[in-house]
Amino acid sequence: MIPSKSYAGFDATSDLKPHTFNRRDVGENDVHIQIKYCGICHSDIHTVRNEWGGAVYPLVPGHEIVGHVVKVGAKVKKFKAGDVVGVGCMVNSCGQCDSCKKDLEQFCQKGAIFTYNSPDQVEGRTKGGYSDHIVVDEKFVLKIPAHLNLAEAAPLLCAGITTYSPLKHWKIGKNDKVGIIGLGGLGHMGVKLARAMGAQVVVFTTSPHKKDDALKMGAHEVVISKNKEEMQKHLGSLNLIIDTVSAPHDVASYMALLKIDGTLCMVGVSPEPHQIPSTAMIYGRKNLGGSLIGGIAETQAMLDYCGEHNITCDIELIPIQKVNEAYTRVLKSDVKYRFVIDMGTI
Amino acid sequence: MIPSKSYAGFDATSDLKPHTFNRRDVGENDVHIQIKYCGICHSDIHTVRNEWGGAVYPLVPGHEIVGHVVKVGAKVKKFKAGDVVGVGCMVNSCGQCDSCKKDLEQFCQKGAIFTYNSPDQVEGRTKGGYSDHIVVDEKFVLKIPAHLNLAEAAPLLCAGITTYSPLKHWKIGKNDKVGIIGLGGLGHMGVKLARAMGAQVVVFTTSPHKKDDALKMGAHEVVISKNKEEMQKHLGSLNLIIDTVSAPHDVASYMALLKIDGTLCMVGVSPEPHQIPSTAMIYGRKNLGGSLIGGIAETQAMLDYCGEHNITCDIELIPIQKVNEAYTRVLKSDVKYRFVIDMGTI
Repeated sequence: MIPSKSYAGFDATSDLKPHTFNRRDVGENDVHIQIKYCGICHSDIHTVRNEWGGAVYPLVPGHEIVGHVVKVGAKVKKFKAGDVVGVGCMVNSCGQCDSCKKDLEQFCQKGAIFTYNSPDQVEGRTKGGYSDHIVVDEKFVLKIPAHLNLAEAAPLLCAGITTYSPLKHWKIGKNDKVGIIGLGGLGHMGVKLARAMGAQVVVFTTSPHKKDDALKMGAHEVVISKNKEEMQKHLGSLNLIIDTVSAPHDVASYMALLKIDGTLCMVGVSPEPHQIPSTAMIYGRKNLGGSLIGGIAETQAMLDYCGEHNITCDIELIPIQKVNEAYTRVLKSDVKYRFVIDMGTI
Repeated sequence: MIPSKSYAGFDATSDLKPHTFNRRDVGENDVHIQIKYCGICHSDIHTVRNEWGGAVYPLVPGHEIVGHVVKVGAKVKKFKAGDVVGVGCMVNSCGQCDSCKKDLEQFCQKGAIFTYNSPDQVEGRTKGGYSDHIVVDEKFVLKIPAHLNLAEAAPLLCAGITTYSPLKHWKIGKNDKVGIIGLGGLGHMGVKLARAMGAQVVVFTTSPHKKDDALKMGAHEVVISKNKEEMQKHLGSLNLIIDTVSAPHDVASYMALLKIDGTLCMVGVSPEPHQIPSTAMIYGRKNLGGSLIGGIAETQAMLDYCGEHNITCDIELIPIQKVNEAYTRVLKSDVKYRFVIDMGTI
């Protein structure tokens, strides 16, 4: 057993507090990682506060993990001690079902094992990256391009792949116009990635003060979504819209901005159902789609792509002792654009 | 001018009544058609009762038109007197925009000219097929395979193309499983066409008494949609669902039946927005799509396909004098499965 220090939630309403537990011993296919940095994803907050149900405490969140390999199991081939590696939202899947065989482990038909709060034989529930060590099967360990700033690379493991995957799935390239709704952790990565892929990028935001940042990140245009005239200018013009907003909003008004056969892809989860008239899809044969992180092979491809194009996240680095304060600020959208915890401070 | 007898609506609430008006003279690109049969589409009722707005009276509905060519203009090449022809939902479009160039005239960026109640230079508003003659540009006239029963072929012009187009767009073939929600005018054509294309076909209906008909038409299985256990059996198994229902219903419960990357395609227009949770798309990268009739080239391809496979509609043939009674029965879903008017009775 590997003793690990962490910050954990103990119920749905209290602050996270220090917690010590044991990671499993390093199995023959396992990689033992010393965690250097872990991003704070909004999903961490939803899960630890049991807003999505099913929380089992103590609950150690965190699925944007980077660090160094301490030790590898006897059969591990891809990694060795000292390697710079990452772990994202999943740590295992059945490997046998149609989804797994298609490199879509996130849709494993037996249920992917997520990095925290998933059933686990040794630890009861998997425990995430707000801790100093983690032991993960090598199939779910990713290589981080060595020249990237490691703290800034951490959120690529969730925010990066969540926006990269739909851009690739809907084959975005230089002749396309892409909309990004919401400039938060996901949105700001969507802007950088869509721009790198050569698309014309339009950011839709309710926050005029984010305009300069969006342009610096690579947006060609920023639309204040409450301004109907600005919205109208883009009617029928977008190939893909990535909707990162996790609050209720008028999705149909964005569907109108799509070209024929265009897709609005949801990656944010609103707590309420969206109100969508049939005609929003029928006129122009438009699609309302969705995407969930990405498979492991695609996550590695994303990291390699970010390495080639020097893409990382805009972050605010904090010590673990400030995690509860950070949660409060995330809920107020007061972060530019992702908190990352320096796990050396634990 | 060509004097034409018709049945027209004169306001949103009264019965259709006989009405005489003039069709335009046959221009050099025009085909003059003596109408033999015209199907009754639910859209006719919505339009004449001004439920979609914009009705201009007198309003002659009808866009499932078949008949014989009486005369053609000097420059007409594809047709000659005596040919068996059809006219569907459109009679013109700009021909110049991106949509028209892609054979998607239904999405013409300047607005397709629909067969009735669209602006028209000669007639004020276009007038549809509940009449004995029509004059249409040859580009919007279709060839009907001569061996098909002409009355049964009429509804192919709307109900046929509306279900054929999504089956083709989403590339349905023999390894696919297709769901059809609703067994009405559209749904029964969806069943026949999906079966002909080699798919495994599942019909979802609220009407147990339609089960035998669905099986005879080619469905492999019929699910009574109120039965949760029957629904559960199909979880995650369908490549495409064509949703023909034009009343409010729980779309998300059908999204759950799609495979990864599957699409639920709406062709029915519900009067109320659908309630769709983000997760219905996100888990399994599923799509909520839509489709509107089809372009002219695709409509001809559909007619040719129906000719090859001997596919026509199940109809109830009525004299024009019974059109108001037929409307009442359509609204009660009391028709198997499409009313067609014998225009020889006018």
